[in-house]
Amino acid sequence: MSTIAANNPALTSWVEVPQNSDFPIQNLPFGIVKTSQLTPRVASRIGDFAIDLKSLYVLGYLENLPFEHSDFDCNTLNVLMKRGKKASRELRNRLSKLFDSNYKDLQKNQHHVEQVLIPIDQVTMCMPVEIGDYTDFYSSREHATNVGTMFRDPENALLPNWLWLPVGYHGRSSSIIISGEPVRRPKGQIKPIPEEPPIYAACRNLDFELEMAFITFDGKPMGERISTDEAEDFIFGMCLFNDWSARDMQTWEYVPLGPFLAKNFASSISPWIVTLDALQAFKVDGPEQSPEVLSYLEYKDQKSYDIQLEVYIQPENADETKICTSNFKYMYWNMAQQLAHHTVNGCNIRCGDLMGSGTISGPTPDSYGSMLELAWKGTKPLPMNDGTERKFIQDGDTVIMRGFSSKDGVRVGFGEVTGKILPALD
Amino acid sequence: MSTIAANNPALTSWVEVPQNSDFPIQNLPFGIVKTSQLTPRVASRIGDFAIDLKSLYVLGYLENLPFEHSDFDCNTLNVLMKRGKKASRELRNRLSKLFDSNYKDLQKNQHHVEQVLIPIDQVTMCMPVEIGDYTDFYSSREHATNVGTMFRDPENALLPNWLWLPVGYHGRSSSIIISGEPVRRPKGQIKPIPEEPPIYAACRNLDFELEMAFITFDGKPMGERISTDEAEDFIFGMCLFNDWSARDMQTWEYVPLGPFLAKNFASSISPWIVTLDALQAFKVDGPEQSPEVLSYLEYKDQKSYDIQLEVYIQPENADETKICTSNFKYMYWNMAQQLAHHTVNGCNIRCGDLMGSGTISGPTPDSYGSMLELAWKGTKPLPMNDGTERKFIQDGDTVIMRGFSSKDGVRVGFGEVTGKILPALD
Repeated sequence: MSTIAANNPALTSWVEVPQNSDFPIQNLPFGIVKTSQLTPRVASRIGDFAIDLKSLYVLGYLENLPFEHSDFDCNTLNVLMKRGKKASRELRNRLSKLFDSNYKDLQKNQHHVEQVLIPIDQVTMCMPVEIGDYTDFYSSREHATNVGTMFRDPENALLPNWLWLPVGYHGRSSSIIISGEPVRRPKGQIKPIPEEPPIYAACRNLDFELEMAFITFDGKPMGERISTDEAEDFIFGMCLFNDWSARDMQTWEYVPLGPFLAKNFASSISPWIVTLDALQAFKVDGPEQSPEVLSYLEYKDQKSYDIQLEVYIQPENADETKICTSNFKYMYWNMAQQLAHHTVNGCNIRCGDLMGSGTISGPTPDSYGSMLELAWKGTKPLPMNDGTERKFIQDGDTVIMRGFSSKDGVRVGFGEVTGKILPALD
Repeated sequence: MSTIAANNPALTSWVEVPQNSDFPIQNLPFGIVKTSQLTPRVASRIGDFAIDLKSLYVLGYLENLPFEHSDFDCNTLNVLMKRGKKASRELRNRLSKLFDSNYKDLQKNQHHVEQVLIPIDQVTMCMPVEIGDYTDFYSSREHATNVGTMFRDPENALLPNWLWLPVGYHGRSSSIIISGEPVRRPKGQIKPIPEEPPIYAACRNLDFELEMAFITFDGKPMGERISTDEAEDFIFGMCLFNDWSARDMQTWEYVPLGPFLAKNFASSISPWIVTLDALQAFKVDGPEQSPEVLSYLEYKDQKSYDIQLEVYIQPENADETKICTSNFKYMYWNMAQQLAHHTVNGCNIRCGDLMGSGTISGPTPDSYGSMLELAWKGTKPLPMNDGTERKFIQDGDTVIMRGFSSKDGVRVGFGEVTGKILPALD
């Protein structure tokens, strides 16, 4: 497979990139943008500009790549992703070349530059992917331990299967939304008084879950499996993921078939899909796995990523308060293992499937990835900068998640995923 | 909304319909067909003929209906379904008129008849719907009781939430296949000796689940709910559904987030979608519900359907053996309640979503809808006509499900869903 020319930490761009931007020339993620003038189209990003790939193509800068005009003149990345890993790598390498300080052709053509670079504040980000199936894993040992401690037995917090397989379940694709879209507080069945029957009411314990998600290329035919060695060739990229959760509904409904209405009212994703290639430099070892995993879950080399994750709550008309600092590297099960497990039974994956990591909690109380854990079932309310406190998420609150990797002076980030809670209907 | 002219039991067709056919003029289901000559297209069925709706349209017989050529010249029903309930009802009413014995225009034009009617043995049935999200319910009280009795406590077989809400969970869309496609025996983690660690092996307890499924029209915007009164306006039709299950994987993996690899390797659907309109004549009362349901689950009028269901096993190179006779009317929760519950939290549904009933078991041991129950965890093997017996499904076995409603001399059926089990890979 082609090399990843775009990752050289010494690269600089002729486009000015602000200090601490998530989007230097080493990132070059993919997304869908539109403006008041421009129809939805495929874009990348550098600094505070969206790169209009449709215009780049029309102007001839994407020649001799395995793409057509319609791949970019499109309101979803799926068509581009259908071209596969090698093609998307070549495209990112080309972008890296075009925006390199040493490349003069584009930078000197002011007319072209004006067509290609759109100031990010003029852009509306659109849902980047038409998601096929959505799977959510449960791969943070700390999160699973916290939940087991709270709701089951602190002495046996992890269930027997947890260390043997990356536990996962299917979620709802239809309600995955783009960052910035508000979320309506859900109604349903809750059981506020354990000895009494359930009632039909609005959720009282509304939560976020700090997750990341990966987006897949087309997989193998149904019946065949993807090995851990092959897995990364089937992963296009990653984004931030807030898997909104109604804890009181979840408690009442989830036995025996798992969460349903507690989760499927909304999940929010960040708009830029950062390729696995762009994250290559931030690979690290994952946690040691014991007991030794079964053969199909064994893997070689580093498969974890050092991605710092942060969560903020912004109450209505107030400043944001940082409530969590975690890291993707805490995940016990890595993406290669998740994908190998998902397909070991012959289950087929398709271009545009989304797989969530599960809540990413770290080892310390300020690294827990949900209100449930941060405020420990409401027993330790979190202070906000405006003087109020939170056990769960209130109407009018905006939850903001941010994430980035940083090494050798290069920072590759995801931007943010935000969502504001609207009051329940009726 | 328009009336359902097509349901008159006195109607007869100028197309000969064999005795006991599932497809008299009162059915007129929708599907996708292709032949060695013809590209995939929308079709209906009468007797032993597929009705080529693309040709009907081209020949002018579908004039003054809210459809275009591209709605029929299509390899999925989704485009047609996008037109909504009223349009699909008008289309079925038109077909009813065209094939009525009293309507001469089409029947007298032999050239047209030859273009429009394709002998069913010349037709390949295609996947009828591009499925968005797939949800599986668990709505048979007898099934839930049997499972609870086997694996938990016979005295408290139903979990506390079961009588309060239609328990459901999300499944995998990518691996839903059309009747006739073989299914590869899945591999994964099983734990044959409870005291020992799990092993990586082929499933040993492979099962079917006798279900029916409904297909939805586009729903309301995210955040709004669909009431039980409105639910039927959002349901296009129904099909037979075999939710293949790997019981040994399920036991090991399903706590706490529900079934995953035990289910997502394959589910099979019957090819003809029978409209709710065609089933109107077979409505019956459902089981009495106690305790009284919460307000959003209350419903008026009859919402259950009398649909006889049968399961057969056909060992390789042997005749089939009937192993189950059940009925859709046994379902405790009806489709209107399922859809009202699914959306009560604002979860949006889309055109082409599929919702399974859950295993449909009846009150008697010969009406149980899975091998797990029929052979009671392997303790009561089922005799086959060829002298062998079955605790679960063996390689080479074909599982066949059939279903039909019958009343006042009219039989409206679903045909069948079949699937043959291939040996595990490696």
